Amino acid sequence: MSESANNPGAQRPGGRTARNREAVLDAVFAELGETGYAGLTMENVARRAGVHVTTVYRRWRTVEGLVVDLLTRLGTTELPFPDAGSLADDLRDFARSIVTLYVENATIRALIETVVAAATKNPRASDALHAFFADRNRRAAVIVEHAVGRGELPSTTDGVELIAALAAPIYYRMLVSRRPIDIPLADRAANATYIAALSGAFDGGA
Amino acid sequence: MSESANNPGAQRPGGRTARNREAVLDAVFAELGETGYAGLTMENVARRAGVHVTTVYRRWRTVEGLVVDLLTRLGTTELPFPDAGSLADDLRDFARSIVTLYVENATIRALIETVVAAATKNPRASDALHAFFADRNRRAAVIVEHAVGRGELPSTTDGVELIAALAAPIYYRMLVSRRPIDIPLADRAANATYIAALSGAFDGGA
Repeated sequence: MSESANNPGAQRPGGRTARNREAVLDAVFAELGETGYAGLTMENVARRAGVHVTTVYRRWRTVEGLVVDLLTRLGTTELPFPDAGSLADDLRDFARSIVTLYVENATIRALIETVVAAATKNPRASDALHAFFADRNRRAAVIVEHAVGRGELPSTTDGVELIAALAAPIYYRMLVSRRPIDIPLADRAANATYIAALSGAFDGGA
Repeated sequence: MSESANNPGAQRPGGRTARNREAVLDAVFAELGETGYAGLTMENVARRAGVHVTTVYRRWRTVEGLVVDLLTRLGTTELPFPDAGSLADDLRDFARSIVTLYVENATIRALIETVVAAATKNPRASDALHAFFADRNRRAAVIVEHAVGRGELPSTTDGVELIAALAAPIYYRMLVSRRPIDIPLADRAANATYIAALSGAFDGGA
């Protein structure tokens, strides 16, 4: 898959392509808020964005493609992966950045909640959510790779599962037990994950 | 709060009250599936159940009351809290029972997913979900109390947060990263939580 297929509209930053991408993704978010995932269509997104529908089909191909790109734009631009030189610090900083993102950015929180809700009924939304978090956790696992490189963790550590365990209590409280998320929650999740990781709880074997 | 208020319709088991409760809760589940949380009304539930609407108002008072009682009926009857004599075993058995419940019982999984989805848009559904998991995790914390009693954990351990940390990776995978849940996931969550707990990661202070 070419670079442009992985990152639709990224060529010619600042040009018409980039502006179209912004307009289309803004339209996706607005449509999600008004009609929900079930009512999201390429045609309505194109009309709202003021671009030809063929442009939307060519760049994003499917509705899932649009939502994944929206998740990517909102998620990755706001959540850098820390590299402070120690696993304990990196896990704490990453967990805190997740909490801070959702506390401070109601738009991103609404997007995630919308897609989580849609995913319970709609396989396309489920696939989009799965793809987003699979990619996100795989990239965040660089934190674990750094720790392995420093000799803090065995090379057999499953970085994706460690990152999932770190994030899980935050999403659980936000979406399931429905209590306010806060920095103490992030710090406890980071500490628990750090201790468990040092003891080999995320050793994936081989 | 009286026992009957905590457990509506539980008096006279096997009698008309118990039968009415079953019919009403069956109707709640059917209505949820057809119209979703937003369309759930006391009147439609009563009509479908074939009981007087005043009976529904008197026993459950609100739509949230109906959903919490449905969650309670489905959740607590199927998920006993283990007491095997060791914290490691109890955490593993409890995590496995959560996975098994959702894998084997599509009805319960659909109910939880429906209310999680509704909670992202509807404060009443959010309150119902919060109340259900607050009660559930508080009761499951008996596992931690037993461990404290055996001297396995300090008495300052926050049992509710420990149970939330145990369950979180399962709900995260089921609802957020949208991958199949399985016994290895349960075992890893249990092992990680156990190790972290022994190191004081869930020490609530005081």
